[in-house]
Amino acid sequence: MFISHLSRYIPENIVPNAHFTQINGLTDEWILSRTGIQERRKANLKENTNLLAIQAVRKGLENLPFPKEKIDLIVGGTYTPYDTIHTLAHAIQYDLNISDIPVISVSTACSTFVNAMEIVQGYFAMNKANFALVVVADHNTAYSNDLDTVGGHLWGDGASAFFVSKTRQTEQDWEVMDIITAGAGNVGKANEGVFLRPTQEGFVMKYGKDVFLNACQYMTKVTQDILKRNNLSLNDLSYFVPHQANLRITKNVAQQLELPEEKALSNIQYLGNTGCAGCAIALDENKHLFKKGDNIVVAVFGGGYSYGAMLVKV
Amino acid sequence: MFISHLSRYIPENIVPNAHFTQINGLTDEWILSRTGIQERRKANLKENTNLLAIQAVRKGLENLPFPKEKIDLIVGGTYTPYDTIHTLAHAIQYDLNISDIPVISVSTACSTFVNAMEIVQGYFAMNKANFALVVVADHNTAYSNDLDTVGGHLWGDGASAFFVSKTRQTEQDWEVMDIITAGAGNVGKANEGVFLRPTQEGFVMKYGKDVFLNACQYMTKVTQDILKRNNLSLNDLSYFVPHQANLRITKNVAQQLELPEEKALSNIQYLGNTGCAGCAIALDENKHLFKKGDNIVVAVFGGGYSYGAMLVKV
Repeated sequence: MFISHLSRYIPENIVPNAHFTQINGLTDEWILSRTGIQERRKANLKENTNLLAIQAVRKGLENLPFPKEKIDLIVGGTYTPYDTIHTLAHAIQYDLNISDIPVISVSTACSTFVNAMEIVQGYFAMNKANFALVVVADHNTAYSNDLDTVGGHLWGDGASAFFVSKTRQTEQDWEVMDIITAGAGNVGKANEGVFLRPTQEGFVMKYGKDVFLNACQYMTKVTQDILKRNNLSLNDLSYFVPHQANLRITKNVAQQLELPEEKALSNIQYLGNTGCAGCAIALDENKHLFKKGDNIVVAVFGGGYSYGAMLVKV
Repeated sequence: MFISHLSRYIPENIVPNAHFTQINGLTDEWILSRTGIQERRKANLKENTNLLAIQAVRKGLENLPFPKEKIDLIVGGTYTPYDTIHTLAHAIQYDLNISDIPVISVSTACSTFVNAMEIVQGYFAMNKANFALVVVADHNTAYSNDLDTVGGHLWGDGASAFFVSKTRQTEQDWEVMDIITAGAGNVGKANEGVFLRPTQEGFVMKYGKDVFLNACQYMTKVTQDILKRNNLSLNDLSYFVPHQANLRITKNVAQQLELPEEKALSNIQYLGNTGCAGCAIALDENKHLFKKGDNIVVAVFGGGYSYGAMLVKV
């Protein structure tokens, strides 16, 4: 399958680290040294998860290389839902006004993007779809608490849309060579390392260290695995696009993989942790860098726990 | 693909219609005539969506016709999440302690069960799984408001687990002959007919009539469609298992399809609307009725909107 087009939407409102100094005493230096985050974006009061997603799709429609009417599958991804009934994917369908196609929303926390792509792979394999739209969005600030000194400063909002075709549409298409996904819900503190229980409270980062260690371990291993099973070495890797949870995690994984730092793409410095949209946004932001034939690995880890990787050839 | 085994879990606590008379003045007669509901089950304070799902799975493991270690895919479904990070599917993985298999949670509101089965079909088509566990659970009472005279009395809690194999395991397996799913998120009042916005409030049934009319229309049409494309007539239909939203919807659909009332299976009378678990629970409750060769259609409609059907041969 092929990524024919992609887009993103980032809210305008910038929240610098100084915001937290005023509210809970965390300094710019402390946040920066622990997370790599300098600022993050926050949705405004009229925005929500579904509207962030719709904005990303509308942006993508501007240069879509095929008519939008061809879209015959919508897979939405979020763990910060605005509405669990008129879900993110159904809100996209409403905005696109395309009838009677499979529409589903999925979640594996921060790793959702790769799972959503794998579900598309399944619909293509069944011959039940040919042109899929994958939209990932997280409105983390709707569920986070600025007063929380453990995790309140981590979160940003954002969305990204991927237009995925079963067959190549143009020479500019990227080919999805392979996808691996897996739950690790039975590992370490998966059941309460980080959680979001809507009827109780927002995000709770109870065992941040366990999340950190498992993210470093799983993103490294799944990257090695997907390269190996496609007969590629680390030298063949042009760019590495990890889930944007923490710049220290990205650096740790890059170091374990012995990757030069410039090959690991990051946006957490200015977007914060945008959840399952982070790595998807990074792909869109950096598309001008990618050259024909480049091998890109997207590697994700989600609280819960969950992990995955996608190998893309430009 | 084949349904090799199934199970359910229903909480013990019974809430009769009289409960609402005390709280908001709705009478037993009024609720019964409008919805067909006499009583519903409510999870206790220690239970949550994930624990309801785990109970259904544990029950299923008792007579599972293959070792649980063979399970290589878990798809969870709910629109009333306990935790959006350690999702329902990840909680199941935690309880089963099976490592490194695809694990995802999905939602298309009340129609989720059929979408979850279709995702399994996709993994089987990709040769990425052979033994899937589909678990649907809704803890509606965690999000509903007993004071709400529009919809507070509708909701019940429950869960069901389906053990699905790519190849026939025993002569008792049911074969899944076909699945249709589609969003109808662009139809009528799909965007606000009924909604659940966790950061705002619980369930709101804003346009119940629009939901009712679309449920009657879509469940009838998708049943006709799935029979037609499998060269079956309504006379070939042994049992019809609709989403359990309202007994009047079930009767309306059965009437449109000219089905004898006894062919349409219902549990809403004593379970209420158990969300995406309702039709799955009904299949498990009635399995003693089904004879070899029976054709069963499960037809679903979800707020949001969304619809689907699954044709099963016993």
